[in-house]
Amino acid sequence: MATLHPFDPITPGEITLATKILQAAFPGVKLRYKKIDLQEPIKAEVVPYIEAERLGKPLPSKPTRLLQVLFHRMDTGAFFKGLLNADSKSVVYAKELPREIQGPVDTDELIEIEQLCLSHPAVKKEIAKLKLPPGVTVCNDPWIYGCDDPNETRRLFQCYMYIVSTDHPQNNHYSVPCKFSPVFDGLTRELVRMDYLPATTDASTDSETKPWKPVETIQYAHDLLTEQLRRDLKPYIVTQPQGPSFTVAGNEVSWQKWRFRVGFNSREGLVIHNITYDSRNVFYRLSMSEMTVPYGDPRAPFHRKQAFDVGDVGFGITANQLSLGCDCLGHIKYFDGYRCDSRGEPVHLENVICLHEQDAGLQHKHTNYRSGAATAVRNRQLVVQMICTVSNYEYIFAYIFDQAANIELEVRATGILSTVPFDNEKFGTTVPWGTNVGPGVMAPFHQHMFSFRIDPAIDGHKNTVIYQDSVPMAEDSNNPYLVGYTTNETVVKTSSSAETSVEKHRVFKIRNDSQINPITYKPVSYKLMAAPSQMLLANPKSFGHARAVFATKPIWVTKYRDGELFAGGEFTNQSKKSEGVEGWVARNENVEDEDLVLWHTFGLTHNPRIEDFPVMPVERVSVMLKPDGFFTKNPALDVPQSSQAFNQSTLHPEAKACCSTGGVKL
Amino acid sequence: MATLHPFDPITPGEITLATKILQAAFPGVKLRYKKIDLQEPIKAEVVPYIEAERLGKPLPSKPTRLLQVLFHRMDTGAFFKGLLNADSKSVVYAKELPREIQGPVDTDELIEIEQLCLSHPAVKKEIAKLKLPPGVTVCNDPWIYGCDDPNETRRLFQCYMYIVSTDHPQNNHYSVPCKFSPVFDGLTRELVRMDYLPATTDASTDSETKPWKPVETIQYAHDLLTEQLRRDLKPYIVTQPQGPSFTVAGNEVSWQKWRFRVGFNSREGLVIHNITYDSRNVFYRLSMSEMTVPYGDPRAPFHRKQAFDVGDVGFGITANQLSLGCDCLGHIKYFDGYRCDSRGEPVHLENVICLHEQDAGLQHKHTNYRSGAATAVRNRQLVVQMICTVSNYEYIFAYIFDQAANIELEVRATGILSTVPFDNEKFGTTVPWGTNVGPGVMAPFHQHMFSFRIDPAIDGHKNTVIYQDSVPMAEDSNNPYLVGYTTNETVVKTSSSAETSVEKHRVFKIRNDSQINPITYKPVSYKLMAAPSQMLLANPKSFGHARAVFATKPIWVTKYRDGELFAGGEFTNQSKKSEGVEGWVARNENVEDEDLVLWHTFGLTHNPRIEDFPVMPVERVSVMLKPDGFFTKNPALDVPQSSQAFNQSTLHPEAKACCSTGGVKL
Repeated sequence: MATLHPFDPITPGEITLATKILQAAFPGVKLRYKKIDLQEPIKAEVVPYIEAERLGKPLPSKPTRLLQVLFHRMDTGAFFKGLLNADSKSVVYAKELPREIQGPVDTDELIEIEQLCLSHPAVKKEIAKLKLPPGVTVCNDPWIYGCDDPNETRRLFQCYMYIVSTDHPQNNHYSVPCKFSPVFDGLTRELVRMDYLPATTDASTDSETKPWKPVETIQYAHDLLTEQLRRDLKPYIVTQPQGPSFTVAGNEVSWQKWRFRVGFNSREGLVIHNITYDSRNVFYRLSMSEMTVPYGDPRAPFHRKQAFDVGDVGFGITANQLSLGCDCLGHIKYFDGYRCDSRGEPVHLENVICLHEQDAGLQHKHTNYRSGAATAVRNRQLVVQMICTVSNYEYIFAYIFDQAANIELEVRATGILSTVPFDNEKFGTTVPWGTNVGPGVMAPFHQHMFSFRIDPAIDGHKNTVIYQDSVPMAEDSNNPYLVGYTTNETVVKTSSSAETSVEKHRVFKIRNDSQINPITYKPVSYKLMAAPSQMLLANPKSFGHARAVFATKPIWVTKYRDGELFAGGEFTNQSKKSEGVEGWVARNENVEDEDLVLWHTFGLTHNPRIEDFPVMPVERVSVMLKPDGFFTKNPALDVPQSSQAFNQSTLHPEAKACCSTGGVKL
Repeated sequence: MATLHPFDPITPGEITLATKILQAAFPGVKLRYKKIDLQEPIKAEVVPYIEAERLGKPLPSKPTRLLQVLFHRMDTGAFFKGLLNADSKSVVYAKELPREIQGPVDTDELIEIEQLCLSHPAVKKEIAKLKLPPGVTVCNDPWIYGCDDPNETRRLFQCYMYIVSTDHPQNNHYSVPCKFSPVFDGLTRELVRMDYLPATTDASTDSETKPWKPVETIQYAHDLLTEQLRRDLKPYIVTQPQGPSFTVAGNEVSWQKWRFRVGFNSREGLVIHNITYDSRNVFYRLSMSEMTVPYGDPRAPFHRKQAFDVGDVGFGITANQLSLGCDCLGHIKYFDGYRCDSRGEPVHLENVICLHEQDAGLQHKHTNYRSGAATAVRNRQLVVQMICTVSNYEYIFAYIFDQAANIELEVRATGILSTVPFDNEKFGTTVPWGTNVGPGVMAPFHQHMFSFRIDPAIDGHKNTVIYQDSVPMAEDSNNPYLVGYTTNETVVKTSSSAETSVEKHRVFKIRNDSQINPITYKPVSYKLMAAPSQMLLANPKSFGHARAVFATKPIWVTKYRDGELFAGGEFTNQSKKSEGVEGWVARNENVEDEDLVLWHTFGLTHNPRIEDFPVMPVERVSVMLKPDGFFTKNPALDVPQSSQAFNQSTLHPEAKACCSTGGVKL
């Protein structure tokens, strides 16, 4: 315990401690646990500690180690949030939450609902009507139930049903969706309703269950493919004979002047804490704060498909346990995590985060054309990566640090499209809100809206956000040839949202007004290379909009407050409206030269290609944080020259004989 | 000769042939050559040839091999364009061009002007006034002279002068600009004018040459740095023990179902011809058609700084001769090129294009959360790369092919900022159109505007460009829950320009209306993942605007015509207005189901960071061409599973002893 750093993830011992403390507080009551996790330390308590670390001074006492627990009383069904003091082994509070608040889906619950569904007589009855041939069965994905009724307080699951054509562990059931979909109450375990899905563009034509007409399952698993695998791909091996350039001590990583701590929790998964470069403060905390996936299919019940993958489920609990040589090349360091199960027992999550170096081509090059002398420096990067599987879909999140003091957040979307049944046998049958991806199956349009939370510490914790537009100069005597252009600067003085602008080349900067660069004479800053994206398409009068206000503006600036971590609010599952960043900006607080948080919403409007099925080639989005006047010159100048002695590349042998003179002699 | 493919670059023998043919046509006249290069074959002649190749049919006769020559008569100074028939060894035409047309700068000319400048008495007089200490000298960069006078017909060079503080071959003279700048006539070799550069924000205060006050040169070369180089970067070696996955025959490359030809010419440098995937036509030709760099500094003479790096100079003649182990990792194949010198002699350009594979992380992954079984496929890519040095600046162009049938054009900007003198010693002295990057030196704002020319052949040469906007559905009975969204499609029927739109998630597609995908029921297509960018900032009334109309719209669609390759027109040097893509769209031709060309203008508004000096970390822009309904499923499904047996990664050893139990036990 004494060895734990304030930012270290929860330990299995702490999970056990939490259940002991709580069980003692609720004697004789059976508790069902949703979440036991570290509560982020109070910033005012932890900053003196990490500042002492940074400056090599004697360490003050550690901040209180706090644990957060979400749980149900099994006697009353009431849902509680508890805060525990792990140092004093005591309950700070345990408060019952209002009925309408639904906690996230947990792993055990997901399996329970799946089994509940398949064993329910009404579902069995529908399955029987399919008259499936031997060897063909049915499975289901329980979906979190997007709100469409202001009075609904039950915990609901919509089960989407699929035909399983083979018992192969990687059968792609998403290729063969069924036309019935039961809705269950997750607490009472009752069947609420049997929905029949529309399978034409006419939303009112429900599909009665009829005997299944066999169709081919479009498979992705290599041993289920009918085509031969490619045989002409040769090995490509990364070796690091002297080992990696990074060092790791516990969760602290040091690499090329960077130092930071790898955090992990069940909701956000990977978090980066306390990032310094060459011992200067840069960022206090970086995290994927929320993500919502609203679907554009207007037909009931698909209008309720709006997952909040962070708040409804969690990237920590869905993080893949990675395997050496599959997910990364080179020299790999893995980090583990822990979550609790529904009984409060610790579950070991092995290899949920990986760390490795990569080469990303040239970092800078210049050739003096007179002398021919060239300086070429390669772009070595450090990648901290997590891969999450949220039912059908995969997200790959990577924080990429480089030697020029840039931090990139790279998001890759892959996995399987969420599909719906569609009677598309007749040539030309299509919908205006989706793409046919196979016989009887359609993939609706949807958006992926991410909220990247940036808690900056640019040379300290008092920062200011500004944005600069590049604009033509006026037609006056200062611009006689009419080619002049300049920048207009806007200071974000009070907590608010802002728009991106490609036309104006709008750039957002986080600066420290009290640190002036000695050469530029401007405050030191980092800029956000935003990913300008289409914002939420759902109508402002819709539930889909009310629940995800964070996804309606690309930029938000709030004053820092402990506990304000999630752009869409703390409880998103079946939420009726979001209680997140839009409320915090409404406080209209001063954010100039203050401890502030910058939130960047970016996204993918994903109108599926058929090439995205049955498993999707990665779609990549990237956001960068780059120094802009933070240093006095390119900080990567001191990276050694790229050389053959170091890199050991191989020359392709020239073709022989008949071809060797081709094109050379006339 | 018989072994040459119609798309093969010019050979040294052909260069020699061209000078022989022309010298015979101009007996007794001394000719000075600017360019001897392959003339792109006539499309109607070459398509039957490459179609026979694709289909494995008997080859028809080859198209006429044409050579293009730009030259001056030294007796009259007249500038000529000639077209030669290399098969019949004859002149097709040799026409004198109007006086106001200036050909591009050639390598010999650049050196001649540099030397002319330094040896000119007026320049020597100014240098003497600097009273430089021993060992300190002066050099100059001759700049192409942007037009600001409709009546100017001289061939002009503006020489920017710099202090050379050491005779090191990589001295960064751009750190110490002088305040005088002579203008020369490149043909008469006369000094036209001595400009004195403004060194304050007041454009009218010319700077009289005074004794130089020594300032530090901000160096980038490793052995000129005062700081120590990093010692903690460990080797990262790519080995391909079984060799590469590509095969190369002459200039034809085959890799992972892709087949294409690597082209090279002195103007565009790298060109990709005749791209097929799995024997299906995809693109006829891809090229970087033009690039302009207008500067935003409004003060004379800086208002004339507007380079057209393709048309004024050429990416072929400025292409770096690459070195093994410096510019790429792994197994590298190089391609050479040839240009002529001013006497018409062939010059061998070794290793100007490189070809290698790279690993780009995961291509697709899905884990079945029930079984835990995962399919993971890595993203192997083939990179065809060229690096160009245009005086101070570097561009890295890479065409990246992947296994999911995507083609990415990646552009990286690096090199040294073009700087100007600025009296910034007094704290707080700045300009609104640039950044102080050192003592006495400022880097003005500028834009890099690229034109990517896409000549498609999506399953054939008759194609259609459309764009799709993602838009909310109307508030009506088809959208009762107000979450529905759909796409609006616009067909580009006649040659025209179009805007990008982030707000509408506008996607441009190139489709073949006669090939219908059997599952989506839509025409097969590729989509352009454009790079929405701020367009040209120069005022529409300025010369800077008139000369670069291609840079005012992100998308242009023209009907194909032989010879229309350059978005800014054939002759950009000192052009008064562009004669390019804006004129070709004005023909208002049908481009629906036609042989069309799609031109994408994208760019970087580059307001320099001090971190971009003295050599700039790469700034990356990427454009992609992705199949969208071209296949019936993900074309990379047949790429084998990523496995440790194949990839041979290394596990980071766990820390020992005292740390090993940290955070595990309570």
